[in-house]
Amino acid sequence: MTLSAPHPARALVTGATGFVGRHLVRHLRDAGWQVAVLSRGRLPQAAAAVEKTYLYTGQTDDLMRALADFRPDTVFHMASLFLAQHTPEQVAPLVLSNVLLGTQLLEAMRAAGVRRLVNAGTAWQNFAGDGYLPVNLYAATKQAFEDVLLYYVETANLRAVTLKLFDSYGPGDTRRKLLRLLLDCLRTGQPLAISGGEQVLDLAHVDDICRAFLRAAELVADPGQPASAVYAVRGGQRRTLRAVVETLEKVAGRTLPIDWGARPYRDREVMLPWSGPALPGWRPQITLEDGLRALRPDARLMQAEAKP
Amino acid sequence: MTLSAPHPARALVTGATGFVGRHLVRHLRDAGWQVAVLSRGRLPQAAAAVEKTYLYTGQTDDLMRALADFRPDTVFHMASLFLAQHTPEQVAPLVLSNVLLGTQLLEAMRAAGVRRLVNAGTAWQNFAGDGYLPVNLYAATKQAFEDVLLYYVETANLRAVTLKLFDSYGPGDTRRKLLRLLLDCLRTGQPLAISGGEQVLDLAHVDDICRAFLRAAELVADPGQPASAVYAVRGGQRRTLRAVVETLEKVAGRTLPIDWGARPYRDREVMLPWSGPALPGWRPQITLEDGLRALRPDARLMQAEAKP
Repeated sequence: MTLSAPHPARALVTGATGFVGRHLVRHLRDAGWQVAVLSRGRLPQAAAAVEKTYLYTGQTDDLMRALADFRPDTVFHMASLFLAQHTPEQVAPLVLSNVLLGTQLLEAMRAAGVRRLVNAGTAWQNFAGDGYLPVNLYAATKQAFEDVLLYYVETANLRAVTLKLFDSYGPGDTRRKLLRLLLDCLRTGQPLAISGGEQVLDLAHVDDICRAFLRAAELVADPGQPASAVYAVRGGQRRTLRAVVETLEKVAGRTLPIDWGARPYRDREVMLPWSGPALPGWRPQITLEDGLRALRPDARLMQAEAKP
Repeated sequence: MTLSAPHPARALVTGATGFVGRHLVRHLRDAGWQVAVLSRGRLPQAAAAVEKTYLYTGQTDDLMRALADFRPDTVFHMASLFLAQHTPEQVAPLVLSNVLLGTQLLEAMRAAGVRRLVNAGTAWQNFAGDGYLPVNLYAATKQAFEDVLLYYVETANLRAVTLKLFDSYGPGDTRRKLLRLLLDCLRTGQPLAISGGEQVLDLAHVDDICRAFLRAAELVADPGQPASAVYAVRGGQRRTLRAVVETLEKVAGRTLPIDWGARPYRDREVMLPWSGPALPGWRPQITLEDGLRALRPDARLMQAEAKP
């Protein structure tokens, strides 16, 4: 099915300044959506391309006003505070960003009669086995939000799809995540101390991920689908970190000066990612080779691309 | 088994100003515990009887200091904001009281090496069936906290028992809950408009509930028990609201002027409470007849007792 609203479909995106969020705004615009974003004050980089920007100061009222004013067809809830490991002073920011904001958003959706939510979760909610077992407090707060979401699905006729993301990569990624470190290592030639490298990664290209979010928007609009569902956005090619490095070396035509085993595995390192239910009607289209090649790791251009 | 610490066991109680919390402080003292309480500023009524009062202003630091200073053997987490139904402006207070405070408490426990938690949950987390299905946002935020708790059990060697409470009653209950309304009706003779009365209630006397918390403290101290468990604190005699009123009438020797069916059932009224796993080694000892009789519904004294 396709989205066939009589008017351009309207999307409210939270977390539009994040890596996936920025790309999602572009994808939505390209697909003909009118897009508004929720911002904590900084104007998102994509601001020029969005219909409206609403300010979030922490108050439920902010969201009530934004939802009542823009009346989106679908809300894409991408906002979260990501921390692989946290310190005590980060406990409150994690709960406020990952539980409170989302709960306020749901309350505002109910008040405005907005029924469709696509929510970004994390595969780290499932450390081992099929059930909930969080890797870290970040993942625990994401699960906590899903508990709240179920309440609104049950009582506010909300329809929701949560997409659980694994590792993501693509152009314009300024996050200090692993692939970024590898690209920096390639660029600078500085040796990189790393763990044993036997952990299996599930890397998805950000364009594939954005297509998954647009597909999820179709599902929440389809009354034949369940009112609430959770799907895994798997990149399609799982490889050990060592194999990922080999792929990068092949694409770049150079060897990376990596010091394998120089660092211990992280506490609760995910050695084999969760296998969740696949998102119906979506498959990743970009192979890791093609995705990495597009980052031009063989060229100086890479440097400019990686710091937008 | 019994608690046989070389020194008096030390308990930190959150929510010590609440109905069950106040009684629990008394029970702990009677059982020989040294008790400290966490307070939002108001001094709890039991303040004279507690070792220390720590102030909570919303900061994680408050709890870090309290736990490091008092070093309790066991934390009894009773604090929560209870709302049968919420308004938009209550969304933030619910998340802050029922998710953030508890998360900060767990973080502070980890930092101080405090390993034992007895947590108060609600049977409303299980609206129907065995699994999680919240009656209201209050119950959803309690479930959200349990998801956070699992993270700390997994990573901080925490041992936790969550007791899911049903309806509670007993002396000194100032909450505007159903039994209170019935007692007021008895006292004033003013007619009380009520629903159809076919919902099944599970009423437990607060002294029985407090004994359940002390039993749970034994379980979290017992290495032979699971690191994390959830039990239902069932009052033992489930009756419809109509049967509860009949019991009260029998004890009081008078008929209550109740207008049955004058009000609709609440949205998501629980008609049949959850049947959870029973707390091992605990049984309620106070029948509803005896518990109601102790409230002296036949005497003028009742009025004084009910407003401590």
